[in-house]
Amino acid sequence: MERLSFLSDYNDGAHPALLRALAETNALVTPGYGEDDICDAAREKLRAACVCPEAAVWFLSGGTQTNATVIDAFLRPWQGVLAAETGHVNGHEAGAVEATGHKVLPLPQRDGKLAAEELRAWLDRFYADASWPHQVQPGMVYISQPTEYGTLYSLAELEALSALCRERGLPLYADGARLAYALACPENDAGLPDLARLCDAFYVGGTKCGALLGEAVVIPRPAALPQFFTVMKRHGAVLAKGRVLGVQFDALFTDGLYYEIGREAVRLADRLRAALREKGYRLAVPSPTNQVFAWVDAAALVRLQERVAFNVWEAAEDGGAMVRFVVGCSTPAKDVEALIALL
Amino acid sequence: MERLSFLSDYNDGAHPALLRALAETNALVTPGYGEDDICDAAREKLRAACVCPEAAVWFLSGGTQTNATVIDAFLRPWQGVLAAETGHVNGHEAGAVEATGHKVLPLPQRDGKLAAEELRAWLDRFYADASWPHQVQPGMVYISQPTEYGTLYSLAELEALSALCRERGLPLYADGARLAYALACPENDAGLPDLARLCDAFYVGGTKCGALLGEAVVIPRPAALPQFFTVMKRHGAVLAKGRVLGVQFDALFTDGLYYEIGREAVRLADRLRAALREKGYRLAVPSPTNQVFAWVDAAALVRLQERVAFNVWEAAEDGGAMVRFVVGCSTPAKDVEALIALL
Amino acid sequence: MERLSFLSDYNDGAHPALLRALAETNALVTPGYGEDDICDAAREKLRAACVCPEAAVWFLSGGTQTNATVIDAFLRPWQGVLAAETGHVNGHEAGAVEATGHKVLPLPQRDGKLAAEELRAWLDRFYADASWPHQVQPGMVYISQPTEYGTLYSLAELEALSALCRERGLPLYADGARLAYALACPENDAGLPDLARLCDAFYVGGTKCGALLGEAVVIPRPAALPQFFTVMKRHGAVLAKGRVLGVQFDALFTDGLYYEIGREAVRLADRLRAALREKGYRLAVPSPTNQVFAWVDAAALVRLQERVAFNVWEAAEDGGAMVRFVVGCSTPAKDVEALIALL
Amino acid sequence: MERLSFLSDYNDGAHPALLRALAETNALVTPGYGEDDICDAAREKLRAACVCPEAAVWFLSGGTQTNATVIDAFLRPWQGVLAAETGHVNGHEAGAVEATGHKVLPLPQRDGKLAAEELRAWLDRFYADASWPHQVQPGMVYISQPTEYGTLYSLAELEALSALCRERGLPLYADGARLAYALACPENDAGLPDLARLCDAFYVGGTKCGALLGEAVVIPRPAALPQFFTVMKRHGAVLAKGRVLGVQFDALFTDGLYYEIGREAVRLADRLRAALREKGYRLAVPSPTNQVFAWVDAAALVRLQERVAFNVWEAAEDGGAMVRFVVGCSTPAKDVEALIALL
Repeated sequence: MERLSFLSDYNDGAHPALLRALAETNALVTPGYGEDDICDAAREKLRAACVCPEAAVWFLSGGTQTNATVIDAFLRPWQGVLAAETGHVNGHEAGAVEATGHKVLPLPQRDGKLAAEELRAWLDRFYADASWPHQVQPGMVYISQPTEYGTLYSLAELEALSALCRERGLPLYADGARLAYALACPENDAGLPDLARLCDAFYVGGTKCGALLGEAVVIPRPAALPQFFTVMKRHGAVLAKGRVLGVQFDALFTDGLYYEIGREAVRLADRLRAALREKGYRLAVPSPTNQVFAWVDAAALVRLQERVAFNVWEAAEDGGAMVRFVVGCSTPAKDVEALIALL
Repeated sequence: MERLSFLSDYNDGAHPALLRALAETNALVTPGYGEDDICDAAREKLRAACVCPEAAVWFLSGGTQTNATVIDAFLRPWQGVLAAETGHVNGHEAGAVEATGHKVLPLPQRDGKLAAEELRAWLDRFYADASWPHQVQPGMVYISQPTEYGTLYSLAELEALSALCRERGLPLYADGARLAYALACPENDAGLPDLARLCDAFYVGGTKCGALLGEAVVIPRPAALPQFFTVMKRHGAVLAKGRVLGVQFDALFTDGLYYEIGREAVRLADRLRAALREKGYRLAVPSPTNQVFAWVDAAALVRLQERVAFNVWEAAEDGGAMVRFVVGCSTPAKDVEALIALL
Repeated sequence: MERLSFLSDYNDGAHPALLRALAETNALVTPGYGEDDICDAAREKLRAACVCPEAAVWFLSGGTQTNATVIDAFLRPWQGVLAAETGHVNGHEAGAVEATGHKVLPLPQRDGKLAAEELRAWLDRFYADASWPHQVQPGMVYISQPTEYGTLYSLAELEALSALCRERGLPLYADGARLAYALACPENDAGLPDLARLCDAFYVGGTKCGALLGEAVVIPRPAALPQFFTVMKRHGAVLAKGRVLGVQFDALFTDGLYYEIGREAVRLADRLRAALREKGYRLAVPSPTNQVFAWVDAAALVRLQERVAFNVWEAAEDGGAMVRFVVGCSTPAKDVEALIALL
Repeated sequence: MERLSFLSDYNDGAHPALLRALAETNALVTPGYGEDDICDAAREKLRAACVCPEAAVWFLSGGTQTNATVIDAFLRPWQGVLAAETGHVNGHEAGAVEATGHKVLPLPQRDGKLAAEELRAWLDRFYADASWPHQVQPGMVYISQPTEYGTLYSLAELEALSALCRERGLPLYADGARLAYALACPENDAGLPDLARLCDAFYVGGTKCGALLGEAVVIPRPAALPQFFTVMKRHGAVLAKGRVLGVQFDALFTDGLYYEIGREAVRLADRLRAALREKGYRLAVPSPTNQVFAWVDAAALVRLQERVAFNVWEAAEDGGAMVRFVVGCSTPAKDVEALIALL
């Protein structure tokens, strides 16, 4: 019997519609570096989805590259980036931010999220210390939506963070590696237009949301990041055949595909969460998106590992563990049922 | 009538065989980050082509990213990279090498090439100056094969460079963005096994040789670049769906496709060069690969620009120019004939 | 009545013997960049004090500069430096380490110190996580002796750390900004020869120990840090008149002056600690060196701030505070008595 | 007989007045980090000398450190610094600028100087190339006054450069490592107030003009370089006992000492130049400051090297050489006469 995989949302290829679009446009001759009509069409669709006609949109290859490039573009030499201590930029990107010369300033978090009030308290403490000019100064705020734990910022939380950031002159940047699964979530109340209104930059993730590769950076007020193309180039983030990314985002934002991808995955993840609860498992994180975190005991752990690929997040003392199941763009409903049967 | 394009070799999509391979493998579930079986198969094929079973092979997205990552991995803080002043890393990569903290040390060149004797003289002069410890020290040598001018290092030239580099403890790194067109060239006498024998690292270009994107770094003696995966990650050069690159290189190195792509383009470029010569044009650079450089007068320039897209490399005083025509993986033979008819 | 100062040990000029040495050597004509006979003599004295005749000794200007230069010289691109979260490099150097492209990996601490067993546990956890190649890898260990809290590593603690570091291939580096006060401390059992035996690099602080400026880096096995002069130069850490530092270290290590400076300050700090205890104050940190940390209540705080300059380290809820008094190289015994009278 | 030294202007100690000032202020207790009254007094004197009451003035330790710090503070990630190819930052600072992530863009020069018209032509060519966004963009202009060859920009040349820089939005920065010798030069027509009016930053050199160490950065419009203190700290350029620099600059700018130091050295250099000319030597560079460049034949070279320390700048084919004699702050007039006698 075949092994089930709930490892992550990047273990497959692309949504078939994207492959088709790549094939259909393959013979076209276009300018390189993302300066072609298809990229422009994709940009227009993203601007429309964000209700932000003046936004700049740039296509990059992956999340770490995108984070390092945007952060490098925002910060000045005396500044660092504030992030939850669990933020992807702090612990999972091999020091890509530090490689640009900037410190990640880690903040306490709850379920992967920063709270405006804790950020305010941190900033107040920072500047209350007379020695602050001897320290790396906060230059921007990094959040992820959904977070590394699959949780969501509510619109109210984002508005509070954004208001504080503007009050303190700190650009707010949201990592949307899995944004499709946030936007598709029934309980989510922050749409793309909200992100465009509240953030100074954010990216709409492609790689983990049905693309072969690709992330679309949206800069609602482009004057905030001048010469961003050159900053991308300096980071090795400009593809000669830039249209490879544009074609895919054009397809993702045609006929609502991006949302559809998210919805189906969240629906299946909800199904899995319900089944876990029914069978008496404790959910470890209140994630409403495509990542499911649960505590399993030692026996269940062994049983599941025989048949299913998934991540062990944290070992428990009793031999059990907190585990993560990820539903991706191409996870079949029958695999979710098979997993549930094994629980 | 449709406009002809001889702008570059990255204005199309991928060779159809690569798209097919992506479609055929699309539904497979594999580990991420290039740790899958397809990437491993592609690595094996590259090792076989290089007759270097112990080589490490890594897949990255583009040339600038690859150069910056490899150079960062080789150099120590007190070192810079020696390159022809026309080298891609010196003037066309937005300071990606300097962004890693290292200077590009520019050397005089001929037709884009470094000569071993000039390198030796430079090194001798450098260390003869008692103030050398106050200067950036040479830490490696960057060349490109073919060069930015489409010219080739002969095997003898490569052996001389390699011998000198080993004598002086300088790793030799070759940028093979257009390597297919070098390997396919009738006059070329340096094959992949020679590069593997003579270089400390080189990359086999995919993007400009028929792939959607992708470059394969070959490190013949992997101990030379420890923890290269982490260095890649730090440069944002690890794709979550790393197999996107492996699938393409697997196809490129199946049944000699990589060589076939190169041969057809070089055949057409040779046809264009012969026609230019016949019609009395002066070739500007002795390039035997897929880039054709020629001087055209003012009238021809105007006439050609009406119907053909190509690069003007350098303006001449008489209103003419040195122009570049590039034949790519998907350039139709009929377009070459159409261009010739316009000359 | 004059205000007393216990702010820090860098609020005065130099020990008179150092100024005298500068005056006496002022007219000499010597080579620049620390390549003169006086620097060489100072190096010899430091080597002798360390009983390490093969050590390389380099003179730099200040602590942050020294830390960034040494750390940059040790680390490779995929590595970061492990340090106590309270370590000076982590929070007080404006990101000088990150400016070299490297992350500071913060570790839990006790009284400013790292314990070998906690370091071992951290390393074991790090490499037990299969995703470690996606993270900044530990490349060296930074400690300070005395620590930011004035506490000391015992010889046994240093030996345990050093043994672990060697087992794991991690260079051990000690920041000795206030080393004179460690070496002079009655309870200290780790001398310069021990540091030279157990560390891969450390610095003997001058600025806070009686010099106008200057820190002496000792590298017991110089092959560990090749081309260190060029790394210094790249950090702007080579003084043209390098002898300014050599002259001062020569004086500091003539007739035991460095130890004498430390002893007198520690004697006065001990006197102050004893008086605090006698008068019922609680010492906040078990520091045996020239920094004295104590809790004072609100009334005492107000009373003291009227007459004495010192640092408030941490506010208490009752209006009192944890305060720091530093005894420096030139603090007069009568000022300590005056402070005690005010307690 | 004692060997004469004309090696450089950093082979001695300090001007006696500076040593005296250090001794006289030695016992004072002051705040650290340059925040003391003496530094403030020195700043006021520099502002007065520049007739620029709003200027920010910062004290750093040496030239390479100062250049890297100022350049890092000015540039954004997509920018590099334009400099004469002979500029100190390009070839003599071990890549300190590149260590901050920025490229030095070398320009042709004459006698060490950039001409406004050549800079204009370079900029026009740069932006005429459609691929400029793929390249490091010019972000500021570095010059030195006097240059590495001891030559001077005239006021008219500085005004032309400054006007062009302002037209193009490029900050202009002048390295004044040997500024005393420019200001003192009879033919110089650009004073400190001119530099303050025409430059966006410049530094008044101390180390080579009579100080033990120290350079004073003047920023006429401080808003141009916000948070400069933190940028300095990040570069390891903040001395704990910052007053060591302030005391010296206070002395240098008391009673015109800085100018007096320059005048005496230039007077002696002029004497040497006149003698060289009289004796039939060819001056190699039209330097009017404290550096004297001359061609000597093989016999003279041997004869001089027996008795005099100086730099050989360039070997001639006939066994002779272009040599450099530097007159420093403490070079005795009798030594110049002794050198002349040997010519």
